[in-house]
Amino acid sequence: MSVGRFITFEGIDGSGKSTQARMFASYLEARGQDVVLTREPGGSPGAEEIRRLLVEGDPERWSPETEILLFTAARRDHLEKTILPALARGTTVVSDRFADSTRVYQGAARAELRDLVDRLHAEVIGKEPDLTFVIDMPPEAALQRGLARESGEDRFEEMGLAFQIKLRDGFLRLAATASDRCRLIDGDRSAEAVHADIVELWQAWS
Amino acid sequence: MSVGRFITFEGIDGSGKSTQARMFASYLEARGQDVVLTREPGGSPGAEEIRRLLVEGDPERWSPETEILLFTAARRDHLEKTILPALARGTTVVSDRFADSTRVYQGAARAELRDLVDRLHAEVIGKEPDLTFVIDMPPEAALQRGLARESGEDRFEEMGLAFQIKLRDGFLRLAATASDRCRLIDGDRSAEAVHADIVELWQAWS
Repeated sequence: MSVGRFITFEGIDGSGKSTQARMFASYLEARGQDVVLTREPGGSPGAEEIRRLLVEGDPERWSPETEILLFTAARRDHLEKTILPALARGTTVVSDRFADSTRVYQGAARAELRDLVDRLHAEVIGKEPDLTFVIDMPPEAALQRGLARESGEDRFEEMGLAFQIKLRDGFLRLAATASDRCRLIDGDRSAEAVHADIVELWQAWS
Repeated sequence: MSVGRFITFEGIDGSGKSTQARMFASYLEARGQDVVLTREPGGSPGAEEIRRLLVEGDPERWSPETEILLFTAARRDHLEKTILPALARGTTVVSDRFADSTRVYQGAARAELRDLVDRLHAEVIGKEPDLTFVIDMPPEAALQRGLARESGEDRFEEMGLAFQIKLRDGFLRLAATASDRCRLIDGDRSAEAVHADIVELWQAWS
């Protein structure tokens, strides 16, 4: 039995990464692969309960440190209950966000928080994706196209455009520094054009 | 403005530590002190929500590692929102359980989990009580006196007597190794007799 591949999609809210993760999972399934499409925060029953603590209520209710602990707890549960069992049975796992999102979001807020995320990751997660598609999109374009507003949790406007620009820079830096596993895609095109690029990059990689 | 003292009560379920924490808080209040009586897991609105994830549902729902992350997230919130603000305004904080409980419970399950608790504590908590009353009670006596059953969450019987004996040993070792801040009390007596000892030890310490 072969071990499955672990593929993640990353990018700012409104970059289209959730749409692309779904299209990519459908593409693989249409080719007869077993696929688990999942997301973070969440992706397992316990992690989805932790997600509710993170996305509901006053956005200021948790300090960054408590928030990082909750994201890490949710990720550990997601990893144990969903990701690792699927990979062990040879299933491909496609996740809409993973640890890179926590690194980039916390790092955009305060550089030393990024270090805390990394230390906790080394302590209790220790797993990286085999391949990460980073969907790049100028925050202004995400707003204009209305994609940011469709993401549901209104984080985009709460956080402000200046913060979204920092996040975008964070994802661009991620793609550059983890270039062995990251593929940067221009997301400011039709979903079909972006998907075609992803399939091409996937075929070259796999 | 003086800084308040941080006093914790520790021991197995049914040791009477919650009763003693309440009696001690009342004793201080009767002497005109400002006191916050709190508990773990919980002790702040956010931490109480995390507590529900920990104490409700199937006891096997979280792995030890996820459980430790959730306990640490709850503790960080409790520390930020309840303990540190109270200490800063000169209030005495009396807590029914704190980090020692996580150390002892996880360490009784697997020694390397105790190390993980300690590393996370150093990373995001970094606060120890000024004084800890460790209420010692033979698990058999706690059961016989019905105290264990009154603790509400039925953990005692779920965990089994053998595990409770390991927990008791863990608390005895804690009192011995952190003897600078820990006071060991024989809990297998009337609540009044135990309280009188605690008051005497408090007067000697403060």
